[in-house]
Amino acid sequence: MTTYVPPIKDLSFVINDVLQVGKYANLPGFADASEETIEAILEEGGKLAANVLHPLNKVGDREGCVRHDDGSVTTPTGFKDAYKQFSDGGWQGLSFDTEYGGQGLPYVLSVAFNEMVSAANMAFGMYPGLAMGAANALHAHGTPEQKQTYLPKMVTGEWTGTMNLTEPHCGTDLGMLRTKAVPQGDGSYKISGQKIWISAGEHDLADNIVHLVLARIEGAPEGVKGISLFVVPKYLVNEDGSLGERNSLQCGGLEEKMGIHGNATCVMNYDEATGWLVGEEHKGLKAMFVMMNEARLGVAIQGVAISDVAYQNAAAYANDRLQGRSLTGPKAPDKPADPIIVHPDVRRMLLEQRATIEGGRAWMLWAALQADLHAKSEDEATRQTADDILGLMTPALKAYLTDKGFAHASSALQVLGGSGYTEEWGMEQFVRDARIAMIYEGANGIQALDLVGRKLPRDGGRAIQAFFAEIDAFIADNQGNDELKPYIDGLAAAKADVVDGTQWLMQNAFANPDNAGAASTDYLNLFSLLCLAHGWAQLARTAIEKRDGEDDKAYFENKLITGRIFLERILPDAKAHLAKLKSGAEPIMAMDAEAFMAG
Amino acid sequence: MTTYVPPIKDLSFVINDVLQVGKYANLPGFADASEETIEAILEEGGKLAANVLHPLNKVGDREGCVRHDDGSVTTPTGFKDAYKQFSDGGWQGLSFDTEYGGQGLPYVLSVAFNEMVSAANMAFGMYPGLAMGAANALHAHGTPEQKQTYLPKMVTGEWTGTMNLTEPHCGTDLGMLRTKAVPQGDGSYKISGQKIWISAGEHDLADNIVHLVLARIEGAPEGVKGISLFVVPKYLVNEDGSLGERNSLQCGGLEEKMGIHGNATCVMNYDEATGWLVGEEHKGLKAMFVMMNEARLGVAIQGVAISDVAYQNAAAYANDRLQGRSLTGPKAPDKPADPIIVHPDVRRMLLEQRATIEGGRAWMLWAALQADLHAKSEDEATRQTADDILGLMTPALKAYLTDKGFAHASSALQVLGGSGYTEEWGMEQFVRDARIAMIYEGANGIQALDLVGRKLPRDGGRAIQAFFAEIDAFIADNQGNDELKPYIDGLAAAKADVVDGTQWLMQNAFANPDNAGAASTDYLNLFSLLCLAHGWAQLARTAIEKRDGEDDKAYFENKLITGRIFLERILPDAKAHLAKLKSGAEPIMAMDAEAFMAG
Repeated sequence: MTTYVPPIKDLSFVINDVLQVGKYANLPGFADASEETIEAILEEGGKLAANVLHPLNKVGDREGCVRHDDGSVTTPTGFKDAYKQFSDGGWQGLSFDTEYGGQGLPYVLSVAFNEMVSAANMAFGMYPGLAMGAANALHAHGTPEQKQTYLPKMVTGEWTGTMNLTEPHCGTDLGMLRTKAVPQGDGSYKISGQKIWISAGEHDLADNIVHLVLARIEGAPEGVKGISLFVVPKYLVNEDGSLGERNSLQCGGLEEKMGIHGNATCVMNYDEATGWLVGEEHKGLKAMFVMMNEARLGVAIQGVAISDVAYQNAAAYANDRLQGRSLTGPKAPDKPADPIIVHPDVRRMLLEQRATIEGGRAWMLWAALQADLHAKSEDEATRQTADDILGLMTPALKAYLTDKGFAHASSALQVLGGSGYTEEWGMEQFVRDARIAMIYEGANGIQALDLVGRKLPRDGGRAIQAFFAEIDAFIADNQGNDELKPYIDGLAAAKADVVDGTQWLMQNAFANPDNAGAASTDYLNLFSLLCLAHGWAQLARTAIEKRDGEDDKAYFENKLITGRIFLERILPDAKAHLAKLKSGAEPIMAMDAEAFMAG
Repeated sequence: MTTYVPPIKDLSFVINDVLQVGKYANLPGFADASEETIEAILEEGGKLAANVLHPLNKVGDREGCVRHDDGSVTTPTGFKDAYKQFSDGGWQGLSFDTEYGGQGLPYVLSVAFNEMVSAANMAFGMYPGLAMGAANALHAHGTPEQKQTYLPKMVTGEWTGTMNLTEPHCGTDLGMLRTKAVPQGDGSYKISGQKIWISAGEHDLADNIVHLVLARIEGAPEGVKGISLFVVPKYLVNEDGSLGERNSLQCGGLEEKMGIHGNATCVMNYDEATGWLVGEEHKGLKAMFVMMNEARLGVAIQGVAISDVAYQNAAAYANDRLQGRSLTGPKAPDKPADPIIVHPDVRRMLLEQRATIEGGRAWMLWAALQADLHAKSEDEATRQTADDILGLMTPALKAYLTDKGFAHASSALQVLGGSGYTEEWGMEQFVRDARIAMIYEGANGIQALDLVGRKLPRDGGRAIQAFFAEIDAFIADNQGNDELKPYIDGLAAAKADVVDGTQWLMQNAFANPDNAGAASTDYLNLFSLLCLAHGWAQLARTAIEKRDGEDDKAYFENKLITGRIFLERILPDAKAHLAKLKSGAEPIMAMDAEAFMAG
């Protein structure tokens, strides 16, 4: 019932016109990414998403995954064929290292492609998405042999991968994990323990599944300093690269969830499974964080993606559904009623969604470009600044965009009224699917703590100072642009609020760390509004520049209308977040823990 | 897995101490409602909710309702027994007219009871809830014979009732409805047409179902001025009150929905079914509005109810789940980690939920008391003011409390992290169930239009002026109460913002009605924050008064802590809503309708 139209034009506008990726043709991979190539890749990727993956979205929700008595898992009808098309198309290796068979294209292009995949079928997209996360962790921390063994097959999509962190008694607090690793003297370990919430832990899409597992080597220190990372494949790999013995690990059950039914969320039991250390002993958490940060960006884009597909279907409904008359007189007098798009409150809902989608997309792709600059720039200072900024942005992108992804999928459902609440129309699936993104890869409250407790103060605040400098430069560059002035004013005001909030944190968190915790979510929201203001200022500048020279004037005019919605309907929340964060920890911490309980 | 603890103490505090219902002992029914009686009724009602209805909540979600080939519908296991206990206990007639077998107790007490029922099992509560709405409409508009025929059986719960408005092509815009009524010359009509979204339209709980159906009498004017209301029972009723012939109406199908699976949402087909006019010809909409307004208050309390049961379970989890350490050093050093309630951001989520629940409950019960004063006061001016205020409050209560009910059920789910997303823990059901309340009985955007377009300007703004006068009197009465000062200041500031927003509306809606539409939702939210500020000021005043004289000092201290959370963490949104509503219709209406579509 739902449809998905890939936002090719918008993705291309951001990548080619706003970020001007063409400027970086001197960097590896970027020379191959001409404007035409980027558009062609987006077109092809969009076709896969819209024509192959989206029709399976509801099928996946209805059927879910099935675990059989032998621990094997069957994915929903059509997923296997679709995955084959995905792999055969070379999509998995789009921006992966060419040494292992990837295409080495910019990461920013992968993110754009991932948005379309997640919008079309979020549950499906998690299979290749997690595999790529695992491949990146192996690429960063594996031995040359490990890389040669696993990466080429993961890049083709023949094998997938997973990350195994959570155990029943520990999720956020990994220091408590119990899965153990016993060295066998031959370089291998026997891994035993239970992991839960393992997305794509078992399925029928690929020949092998490469599990990355956090475990504690016998005798290791307690807490997070005794955790190591292991690669534990479902099938052991022979010297010649062929598949060998089945490893002693199994899916012990599937979670019944609110949504993403098409993805297998597994309990994984490791029973003296054979694994090999990845990276250094006891430094597993650090290695896993490579995967985590990548995964967090992948989740952030899910927020934009689900919101966009929900928006599209709501907008189509609003143009089609006849109900009531415009407050200013009939707009479709020949019909029994006007389409509901004439009603300002329906438009408000749609435009608030759209302003966050388009601003969020610009923010996300700009951040993704930082990852490219960090990985590929020849200039040390550029690399460092890019890495600083990406680190700072990651928790905010993840939390803000997934919070809004859920809220706005719900707002899109609302446009359909009662129909939105039925399974038939498909809107409620978007809401259920979107909800998980606020939780996995670190619940959004953890992202907020990561931002205020780690990313902000690190290196004396170097990252946020670099971001402020970029904003200041943008403002200085665009003085005198009258049409851009509201964006510049909004950006400057939001920056002043973030400066104010940051100073409050510096002054108060030291005295009482609970002040940082109590302020964290409101700080994250305030900070994210500044990032969106920055994204929108960039979009608007380019739209103004291009509007008069192009045929498609309406596209740019509409961009500027949507930008005004951001300035007038979304950005005003900044002041409220600032007021709330400054209210501090005292009332939050005043009540006895037991007094929270009912009765 | 979930539990529910009826908030007896809090309900009693609001009804007996804050609203001081004892003051109204001169009014019919109130003399029977002593403090002890009220507490006893709440205790008994709470037991029914917690012990009988709540254990069936998950059963209802999992099993749903089943329609058989003959059009009959079976409710989930246990619902029938539970409904019998509900009826046998006399709960259906708690505040209904004694002339028809009701107990005639204050409506405010019914609302408190309904909160507990909805929290325990929202899908179940809709069966008796809709029946009461139908009974009230018959009571207000039926002939003496109709009342005598239907009401006594509806009051005992032997029969239930429904409201039939929506048709496939019209929901909000009832002017388009097509169901027709053909007079038979004997006072009866033949009703033919299809109605959809009929909650409790068919089920196995009661001996008869009394459908109230909107239809158009042959030859009636087009639009809303040609709609009449009919009573169309499932079984015709013989002169002696016994059940006669089966009427020709049938459930044609059940909707598959996101939630409230335990309630049968029916397509109802009327095929020359026999019905009788209720009220005057062509004035059906007016008669139905009695039912609608009652139903909207019933939906508003669902928002508070679901948020409360979700909060309770999240708070219990937060006290139990060990994960991480407090930022200020271990609080449970003998355990492997601290319970997550030590973390400020977890507390923030819980307290923001709680501040809205407790403030919303106070607001809701205060509004319910207006309904009692309107119905029962001997003073004409009191009756009128009460009716004005209740009319003004109804759309705000419905929209604001259900928006927050959903948002806060989702926030409660978040406290559980991944567990919250699984079916096993039951939190995700609360989120799915809560979602419908934003839609049915008039989508929340329609409530906002009702507020700004109808309730606010009616009688020259008499209702809001009465509300302002009440606020001014409260402020004047409590000058010099130092401890109450933050509440008084918050209330005064919120009132000033509402005055400002109202003036903006008056000045701008006349010039362009779309300004009212564009402002409506933000105005409703701003207005609702004022109502909550009013509720919290009342709660705080009473808590301060009672704190030092009572044993249970902690209860009152905690009330005041929660009140501070409202003032410092929720009320700051008022200014943002004011800024947004003043941004006006221009950017909202600027884009062509087609430009909303993707591609």
